Amino acid sequence: MNNIVGLLLFNYYFAIVASDGYLLETKYIDVPIDHFSYTTNATFKLRYLVNDSYHGHGGPIFFYTGNEGDINNFAQNTGFMFDIAKSFEAALVFAEHRYYGTSLPFGNQSYVSPTNLGYLTSQQALADFVLIIDHLQDVYENQKNMKKLPVIAFGGSYGGMLAAYIRMKYPASVFGAIASSAPIWQFNGLIPCEDFYRITTSVYGSYSKKCATTIKNTWKIIRSFTQTPAGKANLSSLWNLCAPLNTEGDIKTLVEWVSEIIINMAMVNYPYPTSFLTALPAYPVLEFCSQLDSLTWKDEYGLLAAIGESLQIYTNYTKSVKCNVIAETSSQLDERGWNFQACTEMIMPMCSTEVDMFENEPWDFQKYSDECYKNFNIRPRAQNEPILEYGGKDIDAASNIIFSNGLLDPWSSGGVLITRNNNIKAIIIPDGAHHYDLRGQNEKDTNSVKIVREMHVNEIRRWLNRYYYDVIPKVERV
Amino acid sequence: MNNIVGLLLFNYYFAIVASDGYLLETKYIDVPIDHFSYTTNATFKLRYLVNDSYHGHGGPIFFYTGNEGDINNFAQNTGFMFDIAKSFEAALVFAEHRYYGTSLPFGNQSYVSPTNLGYLTSQQALADFVLIIDHLQDVYENQKNMKKLPVIAFGGSYGGMLAAYIRMKYPASVFGAIASSAPIWQFNGLIPCEDFYRITTSVYGSYSKKCATTIKNTWKIIRSFTQTPAGKANLSSLWNLCAPLNTEGDIKTLVEWVSEIIINMAMVNYPYPTSFLTALPAYPVLEFCSQLDSLTWKDEYGLLAAIGESLQIYTNYTKSVKCNVIAETSSQLDERGWNFQACTEMIMPMCSTEVDMFENEPWDFQKYSDECYKNFNIRPRAQNEPILEYGGKDIDAASNIIFSNGLLDPWSSGGVLITRNNNIKAIIIPDGAHHYDLRGQNEKDTNSVKIVREMHVNEIRRWLNRYYYDVIPKVERV
Repeated sequence: MNNIVGLLLFNYYFAIVASDGYLLETKYIDVPIDHFSYTTNATFKLRYLVNDSYHGHGGPIFFYTGNEGDINNFAQNTGFMFDIAKSFEAALVFAEHRYYGTSLPFGNQSYVSPTNLGYLTSQQALADFVLIIDHLQDVYENQKNMKKLPVIAFGGSYGGMLAAYIRMKYPASVFGAIASSAPIWQFNGLIPCEDFYRITTSVYGSYSKKCATTIKNTWKIIRSFTQTPAGKANLSSLWNLCAPLNTEGDIKTLVEWVSEIIINMAMVNYPYPTSFLTALPAYPVLEFCSQLDSLTWKDEYGLLAAIGESLQIYTNYTKSVKCNVIAETSSQLDERGWNFQACTEMIMPMCSTEVDMFENEPWDFQKYSDECYKNFNIRPRAQNEPILEYGGKDIDAASNIIFSNGLLDPWSSGGVLITRNNNIKAIIIPDGAHHYDLRGQNEKDTNSVKIVREMHVNEIRRWLNRYYYDVIPKVERV
Repeated sequence: MNNIVGLLLFNYYFAIVASDGYLLETKYIDVPIDHFSYTTNATFKLRYLVNDSYHGHGGPIFFYTGNEGDINNFAQNTGFMFDIAKSFEAALVFAEHRYYGTSLPFGNQSYVSPTNLGYLTSQQALADFVLIIDHLQDVYENQKNMKKLPVIAFGGSYGGMLAAYIRMKYPASVFGAIASSAPIWQFNGLIPCEDFYRITTSVYGSYSKKCATTIKNTWKIIRSFTQTPAGKANLSSLWNLCAPLNTEGDIKTLVEWVSEIIINMAMVNYPYPTSFLTALPAYPVLEFCSQLDSLTWKDEYGLLAAIGESLQIYTNYTKSVKCNVIAETSSQLDERGWNFQACTEMIMPMCSTEVDMFENEPWDFQKYSDECYKNFNIRPRAQNEPILEYGGKDIDAASNIIFSNGLLDPWSSGGVLITRNNNIKAIIIPDGAHHYDLRGQNEKDTNSVKIVREMHVNEIRRWLNRYYYDVIPKVERV
């Protein structure tokens, strides 16, 4: 199951851009392929999106630090920035992460080997963002006659990690950061590796103990039912798979596919229908469990039929899918990018145990490393690399960051849920899913997310007041 | 004159290690050649020196962030760390900067081309240091039963910049920094480019206006006197040059050589004899000006004779030098390293004008860039690169750093002499030369340096108290 870990953050972002989407202008900037050495002077075009229609005199730049996917998807699913832009007179910027979307350093050769792919790191991405910010400071200096506008970073998930990191590493470029559902502690030894699956289990259990128990029982039944060719054919037909199950590897892929759907439903368990990852009803976990609990079965086949029917809430909510491709995502470029990151810097140990509802699998770094070598001809250098680079739990020197986490989000396992650092804030959304607070307002919004968004606004206001009346005079007069 | 700028920081460090030098154990650690990409997994051996004979239970690690030269020289000339080690029960560590001393990533091929030399950057060096610190934390955890000992960085000049930068960029690895004579603002647009030469002029003028005026008059006389072959031969003989002057290029080199000596004497203008750069008397600027002022001359030849004689305070204090090699340093490896850094990240604009005593030369970035291309087949990317990387004057988010500067030090031009950030300190040594405070105590020490060293000790004590009683519980309990 470990090899799906890398996909989880990623898969979430196959956004379907609404036809009435937020308006943004597409721009490009030339950035060095390698910011941290001088072995090459090659550059490439990085994409970013701008909407400065709300921008007032001296107003801030709200800067989304793009994550592992096409930046348009993030822009269209971060309505919070649009909702508050007017009152702050802010310019909105969404920067694409290198090696995703159209920001490919070596064009269609970007993924061919570590020689080309090796520049895909968070540090290089942060340095890209700093150059965009520097460029925008020049643009808006001319327009607004203010030397250096304040920049507030926003990001969700891996993008939230980057929002926090850019404030930590480049505080002269970014004055504050809203880091939503950012699992900056999902690294080796910082948290128990089983937390992610335990939280997911608890989300399902909170709707229905029976539902979680049924899921827990499913894995062994899948394994035993598919031991024979007839069983494989039977389940292929029952679950309407596009390609019939053949090998043991296919069964592994199937188990991962089901696990991933179950996790994804927890991540996007929003109180209204969304089309973020795929078309889904409000509260998909509730829908799934209600349906599963309402069904009855007599034998293994019956249980598998019930699971298959309930999974359609996720796989076929639109009733337009002809058959299910269980390994669909593995051929997609962006996913390959995240898998590479998960094999280099972003090694996030996870394990499932008897306590959770997933198929048991220990964390095995050697096995993980072997898999990376097989896929990318590269091995992780050391599991603590991101901890040394970004400080791990020691964020004592950080300031002006809000870490927000929904407790119904599996990724809250690696989030900053509590802090004794007075210069940062840890905010909980008790009934929130994955970076729920960054979404645009909706009539079905829960009270808790409304309050958290207000807290964000108040804190940004406090940061900006300090910037205009304290920092700017200091920096420009020394 | 601009092309000597790169050498100034460097030349200072041809330390002659005293026979009764401080004792240190030499160690090596394997570090990645490239910390910020995965295009190569090659490593090399980085050297560092350790003395943990004073190290007590849970005591801190005092970590010197090595600069552009053999680390032994820095260790032997940073007696302050040894002087205070016992009272803090500190382990002393001196880490060599990559591409200097024996820490050569590609052995004797390290300097052959940008392909090999391109990994010589401050960021890569900081990441090397972080790995040494991480390794030491493991070593001392076992020995001292404390999970993460506090680390205080020390550095002078470029090493002082690195001490400040490592605290800014890796606050989880380094809790505080003493950054002595660190010209972190000697970058494009942060300070007037003429400050460096103006300060040097003012140091000489403070001893004797006449001395500064004589120096100011010398350049034109060198130029006019050497217009003919006979004049060149004459001056070559008068100043006892090993290779006679031939071309206009030789005259340029000669002017740079004299300028550099004059600047270096200001940098090492300590109140007692030193052998740091070369054997020198106490207060070499005073010695130089006293001698120059005591001489009389009737014509150009007479003035040049007087200058030549006075320069011997620097060139031949030991009376053992047979002749002067004016381009001596340019064949040395370490200098080439610093010149590369000065052509990539560390572009420090300088200019001399009518107001100072040096030969006039404007700051001409294009000319500078052309020179870099000639020497290294590389051009600086942008003059503001180090400003974006390290924040320039905006150090509002920094904490636990002391910036100390001697006002008699030319490099104080780029130093942090004042700050409104309550979490850092800017300390002035009114009668101090280049990182005087980091030297070991001496009976001739001025009161001001004694007070500043006390301030360092008090501040380090305050940091450590906070670390032990506030940070450690936070980090380890969250």
